[in-house]
Amino acid sequence: MKNKKFSDIFADVRKKHPLVHHITNYVTVNDCANVTISIGGAPVMADAPEEVCEMVAVAGALVLNIGTLNGGQIESMILAGGMANDLKIPVVLDPVGAGATKFRTRTALRLLDELKITILKGNAGEIGILAGAEANVRGVDSYGMIGDPVKIARKFADVSGITVVISGATDIVTDGKRVLLVENGHPLMGGISGTGCMAASVTGTFAAVSDDPVLASAAALAAFGVAGERAAAYAHGPYSFKTALFDELAALTPEDLASCAKIRKQ
Amino acid sequence: MKNKKFSDIFADVRKKHPLVHHITNYVTVNDCANVTISIGGAPVMADAPEEVCEMVAVAGALVLNIGTLNGGQIESMILAGGMANDLKIPVVLDPVGAGATKFRTRTALRLLDELKITILKGNAGEIGILAGAEANVRGVDSYGMIGDPVKIARKFADVSGITVVISGATDIVTDGKRVLLVENGHPLMGGISGTGCMAASVTGTFAAVSDDPVLASAAALAAFGVAGERAAAYAHGPYSFKTALFDELAALTPEDLASCAKIRKQ
Amino acid sequence: MKNKKFSDIFADVRKKHPLVHHITNYVTVNDCANVTISIGGAPVMADAPEEVCEMVAVAGALVLNIGTLNGGQIESMILAGGMANDLKIPVVLDPVGAGATKFRTRTALRLLDELKITILKGNAGEIGILAGAEANVRGVDSYGMIGDPVKIARKFADVSGITVVISGATDIVTDGKRVLLVENGHPLMGGISGTGCMAASVTGTFAAVSDDPVLASAAALAAFGVAGERAAAYAHGPYSFKTALFDELAALTPEDLASCAKIRKQ
Repeated sequence: MKNKKFSDIFADVRKKHPLVHHITNYVTVNDCANVTISIGGAPVMADAPEEVCEMVAVAGALVLNIGTLNGGQIESMILAGGMANDLKIPVVLDPVGAGATKFRTRTALRLLDELKITILKGNAGEIGILAGAEANVRGVDSYGMIGDPVKIARKFADVSGITVVISGATDIVTDGKRVLLVENGHPLMGGISGTGCMAASVTGTFAAVSDDPVLASAAALAAFGVAGERAAAYAHGPYSFKTALFDELAALTPEDLASCAKIRKQ
Repeated sequence: MKNKKFSDIFADVRKKHPLVHHITNYVTVNDCANVTISIGGAPVMADAPEEVCEMVAVAGALVLNIGTLNGGQIESMILAGGMANDLKIPVVLDPVGAGATKFRTRTALRLLDELKITILKGNAGEIGILAGAEANVRGVDSYGMIGDPVKIARKFADVSGITVVISGATDIVTDGKRVLLVENGHPLMGGISGTGCMAASVTGTFAAVSDDPVLASAAALAAFGVAGERAAAYAHGPYSFKTALFDELAALTPEDLASCAKIRKQ
Repeated sequence: MKNKKFSDIFADVRKKHPLVHHITNYVTVNDCANVTISIGGAPVMADAPEEVCEMVAVAGALVLNIGTLNGGQIESMILAGGMANDLKIPVVLDPVGAGATKFRTRTALRLLDELKITILKGNAGEIGILAGAEANVRGVDSYGMIGDPVKIARKFADVSGITVVISGATDIVTDGKRVLLVENGHPLMGGISGTGCMAASVTGTFAAVSDDPVLASAAALAAFGVAGERAAAYAHGPYSFKTALFDELAALTPEDLASCAKIRKQ
């Protein structure tokens, strides 16, 4: 079956219902919780240093998102990330707004340095900045990077041992050796707050049940994108699109993913 | 009229529009605000120690929810809860994730010890843990308790003087003497984030206008459940269900509750 | 063309896509982000003292909202507001709940004192309190002020040099000299949490592209109100209204605003 290795991961998500621990921003946190449930996972949000180690220890994946970063959260991210590393639990980092302020850039680099990040998922601007390319981030929006995103992502992945995901019209997923391009999705996904954060949550959910972060990331982005395509077919605007997106994620089957995923090797 | 004592409480909510002060998590806080408005109350969220006493003093009820607990919030909960106790304002505690981490369990027990909680509302796992039964909580999801939930809740209520509510397919409400079972609701309510938190907000809103926490809790859960049943009749998935749930809560009348509530004594 | 000066500001919003930096509450923050995107701006939420100055420096406007105020946020508001003042970036203050607690009243007054606020937008109770009138605020809801709101707003604006906006069935916008009344909107806007906060975000977005805070505020409130009227035409209840409100904001054109804005001079 076409796309079987991707749809198998999704089938596993639906079967295993993995717990996904988030330390994330307060803007899109509800969307992250609902997207995790809709795709088949069980979200938990906890960011107090008193409990993050215990919480992540029973989770299948940890998602770190710096969208409304503050000092206390950094401590919790380091604690939870360290525990996840010790227990070989995959860690997804979404470096929201890296490049927009020194505080975000520095913190993202610190997390990349002190933790073993499994998957780094950002837009072209964020990844460009962290990979040392010339790139442009305004607020939490990417204004692109200078150079070939695939080459830059591939090199950064190769040197760091991290699976790098650049979200965009075509998503790029690479571990330095393999490069997968995901072409699912719809422009309406850019018309609401939080699709980037939600994509990271779906990626964490898939990574929780797979040993291969490249396949898991591509499968997650394709699933999210297929749901977006289906939602766009009948949405009247951004918020009815958002409603439909969650509905379609919940309705999506592994078979749908197998037949609709547009993932290709570069 | 059947269910009159329940629908009368709801009629009072609609008439008195009680202010419900929440100290709650940042994941579902918007849902809690909207559910409170939809059912007829006026939500206010405030958690700074500088103002919680003053805010709760003009409220009809206080809802404490430990979903994204942190140290500062505990202080505010103790302060606001103490003021509520002094003023005989009912306090609802939703011990989200108690049992998942020692920090949550310990804090829930501390709040139960230092404050006079009026209504303790949780899932079977959370209540089981706090009642000293063997129970299982993973993240914020219940995996049940060992033993008869009604017996355990009843005994805990009897000893503590707290009205205990266990949410589930059949909700259990007991003060140790009376036991009410509420059978309204729909499985789709488990498909979105926050229904547990929302149920606590509705419970707080009803408790604000009633002297009987057992009747108020049962009426609140029945109202929430009836709205859920109606929403499920035309929802296409989890988020259109969520939209419909708020719409149906706002449209619900005391007469609807009188005719549709499925509340029985055990 | 009727209303041309208002629709021109909206056309500029759509063309320039201004970045709007928010330091705001965690209850309605997602709504503020989505409303900003829907109307044509780019929201960024950041409240850590380490980064707010850098973030606001690249923004077109700063929105300060004290809905879930805490000590750390005040520091960040002072820092970001000071930088905005230095760079002549307009600052919108939404004093949510001023009058409900001394902490909120005191902080709103401090922000008005230490910062040059461009636009102060609140309900009648909040503005009344800050203007020194007798007014009544319960939680975050206004119970009106004693006296003529237009006179009170006008005098406060005149003395302070701030553009004052009182939201209500008829919105009042004044800089002390001019008074504009905006009569767009729909009662369903009061049936959901956050419309006041959203109005402040839209106002900030318009202020970001205009030198005239009076025209920008009136245009923003009219645009928000027209979208509300259109959404109300087909909503079934509060949450389907909310969904429709965002959809209609995104669909609204400057031509729509020109033909539907009900703005008149007093």
